[in-house]
Amino acid sequence: MDNFTFHSPTEFVFGRGTQNQTGKLIKQYGGGKTLLVYGGGSAERSGLIKQITDSLKSEGIDFAVLKGVKPNPTDDKVYEGIALAVKEGVTFVLAVGGGSVIDTAKAIAMGAVYSGDFWDFYCGKATPVAALPVGVVLTIPAAGSEGSPNSVITKLDGLHKVSCRCQLTRPKFAVMNPELTMSLPWEQTAYGITDMLCHIFERYFSNTPAQLVNAYSEAIMRDVMDNALTLKINPEDYEARADVMWAGTLAHNGICGVGKEEDWATHRMEHEVSAIYNVAHGAGLACIAPAWLTFVAKRNPDMVWKFAINVMSVNPEGLETDQIIEEGISLLKDFYHDLGLTTSLTELIGKEPDIDAMVKSLEGNMGKSLGFYVPLTMDDCREIYKLAL
Amino acid sequence: MDNFTFHSPTEFVFGRGTQNQTGKLIKQYGGGKTLLVYGGGSAERSGLIKQITDSLKSEGIDFAVLKGVKPNPTDDKVYEGIALAVKEGVTFVLAVGGGSVIDTAKAIAMGAVYSGDFWDFYCGKATPVAALPVGVVLTIPAAGSEGSPNSVITKLDGLHKVSCRCQLTRPKFAVMNPELTMSLPWEQTAYGITDMLCHIFERYFSNTPAQLVNAYSEAIMRDVMDNALTLKINPEDYEARADVMWAGTLAHNGICGVGKEEDWATHRMEHEVSAIYNVAHGAGLACIAPAWLTFVAKRNPDMVWKFAINVMSVNPEGLETDQIIEEGISLLKDFYHDLGLTTSLTELIGKEPDIDAMVKSLEGNMGKSLGFYVPLTMDDCREIYKLAL
Repeated sequence: MDNFTFHSPTEFVFGRGTQNQTGKLIKQYGGGKTLLVYGGGSAERSGLIKQITDSLKSEGIDFAVLKGVKPNPTDDKVYEGIALAVKEGVTFVLAVGGGSVIDTAKAIAMGAVYSGDFWDFYCGKATPVAALPVGVVLTIPAAGSEGSPNSVITKLDGLHKVSCRCQLTRPKFAVMNPELTMSLPWEQTAYGITDMLCHIFERYFSNTPAQLVNAYSEAIMRDVMDNALTLKINPEDYEARADVMWAGTLAHNGICGVGKEEDWATHRMEHEVSAIYNVAHGAGLACIAPAWLTFVAKRNPDMVWKFAINVMSVNPEGLETDQIIEEGISLLKDFYHDLGLTTSLTELIGKEPDIDAMVKSLEGNMGKSLGFYVPLTMDDCREIYKLAL
Repeated sequence: MDNFTFHSPTEFVFGRGTQNQTGKLIKQYGGGKTLLVYGGGSAERSGLIKQITDSLKSEGIDFAVLKGVKPNPTDDKVYEGIALAVKEGVTFVLAVGGGSVIDTAKAIAMGAVYSGDFWDFYCGKATPVAALPVGVVLTIPAAGSEGSPNSVITKLDGLHKVSCRCQLTRPKFAVMNPELTMSLPWEQTAYGITDMLCHIFERYFSNTPAQLVNAYSEAIMRDVMDNALTLKINPEDYEARADVMWAGTLAHNGICGVGKEEDWATHRMEHEVSAIYNVAHGAGLACIAPAWLTFVAKRNPDMVWKFAINVMSVNPEGLETDQIIEEGISLLKDFYHDLGLTTSLTELIGKEPDIDAMVKSLEGNMGKSLGFYVPLTMDDCREIYKLAL
């Protein structure tokens, strides 16, 4: 285990009806006038936005509204939010939604108190020294952004999709009511499950010895897969919704990565797919993850073998290492197919993707090497994209 | 899963050499003059106290010293610490040690800013509204107090050993260097392992459905037991020390109890043993836990059966439920014996304990009912003490 600092100060308020505590929580964390950020009409139609604004009003909290955040959120919405936050003089940013909304809220929170261009923080030109406090009402368990310091924004000019890690943007609180996720379209549930599993993959596939962290990470992965299949049959199973929601947080608040060198090649390779072809991040991951596993297992089989046995429940008896690995990856693909997802990039985007363009953009965003479990050259990445076709 | 709030804002700074960051961390959390609280000579002899005071001095942090905290910490030391804290005008309390030292530091932190008697908080007469910030350098992984809001103090007058839960006393930071635990006498390692396992038991044995939380709790329990046996052979195995140390925190920072009704009968029954006979808390737990399991399994077998299979690895094939449970509890006792601990109260204290006196004190401290997995009457508790003889 490597030295580490683990600091997850977010207050998680979990369970039925908790969205009605939002106003009280904003007050508890010193918020005054609030920028309410959300996506589309579903949060309005379900009555959630009214419940939340009622909760704000009952605490005397004034608010401005930024709506219309789209999946794979883009810089234009962030600029719009920053302008609104400054004009309205807000002191708190409340995200109501999933990863795209939360990430937009985080970018606004940093940008609203910065004299330069918020993109400086994403392209590495500057480091944030202040941010407005952020709170979350989570409606899509997936990105783990409710308990992480990370946000991912796409710059429309050039379609650069990059991540910024800033502890100042860790949400002060995250309201998590599993009931709010019951009416999600199935594919959003499936994408979310794929994303949270991949957040654990990025930490699990590591060369650092970590018996304890691996053991509880495996337990979480097995549980998510089990509950995913329950939800496929009964999307309104509260216990399964609750487990998946809590797992999404644990997958990305850092607890599955303590003391380990994390990888993140799969996520970065997928960012090119969703940035260029505007597909859902989770859908892209279901194509890239098995391809990445197939590629890295040839150079560094240990953890892929362990994953096959301990997570995918391959019975190793009488099998060679490479057979165990092959069976494990095959079962992972079966799992994605059971969720209704494709593991073929060509099928996903409806044509063969432009691998040259993706590799070029990847190199532009990430440099010449990617990942740690097996450090990848750009030629390796090209190979993985091919395996994912 | 029940509704819950999970809030673990402590910053965990983990790994080799981290004690040298103590001064910097105190400053980061706004501390000025500091009350340094520790136990006996071992922390001085090992050079740890010098490393820490050097770290404080290099940050220009002045400090006063309270030493001599004993296991099963008592109110007299707390009063001494409060008087010193007030006299010296400290603004931060730093605990260097295990649970006893940390719990004493927490009690001082509450008492130093309270005009009444600090015991008011432990006997339920008052609720703390303020406390000095507390930091920790952990030397004994066991109590989990470094990441919890709890502290347990014994009032010498009457030997009342009771717990106070106050979020204000959650440590701001916990410095955790596994190397510091390598030179612990073996029995302290064994007591610590017993204590942290029991912190998970208190949450695991519950009637609330909690598939995910149970799954990762089981993974942590299995890993602690495995590493305990590694350490019995090689006490200087860094990876095993690191796993046990991190597990001790996870066992008690609340993450294994989210959304569950917790039990705590075993701990409360043990507190009477260690308060009256001044034995180590972990030593008492090794006697009470198997007796409690034997008793409750007759009324509510489900989770004990699950524990036997998933944690103690009993192969259920061809066995009846009660045989599985019996085998599981028998293997748990074997585990304690492998650690060199007795599971007999009579052997532990060198004579038959006064069960009447323990039940009377338990009733005085806790009232007529105890626990939730199986709510216990005082007669039930008497029966469990008998099973532990």
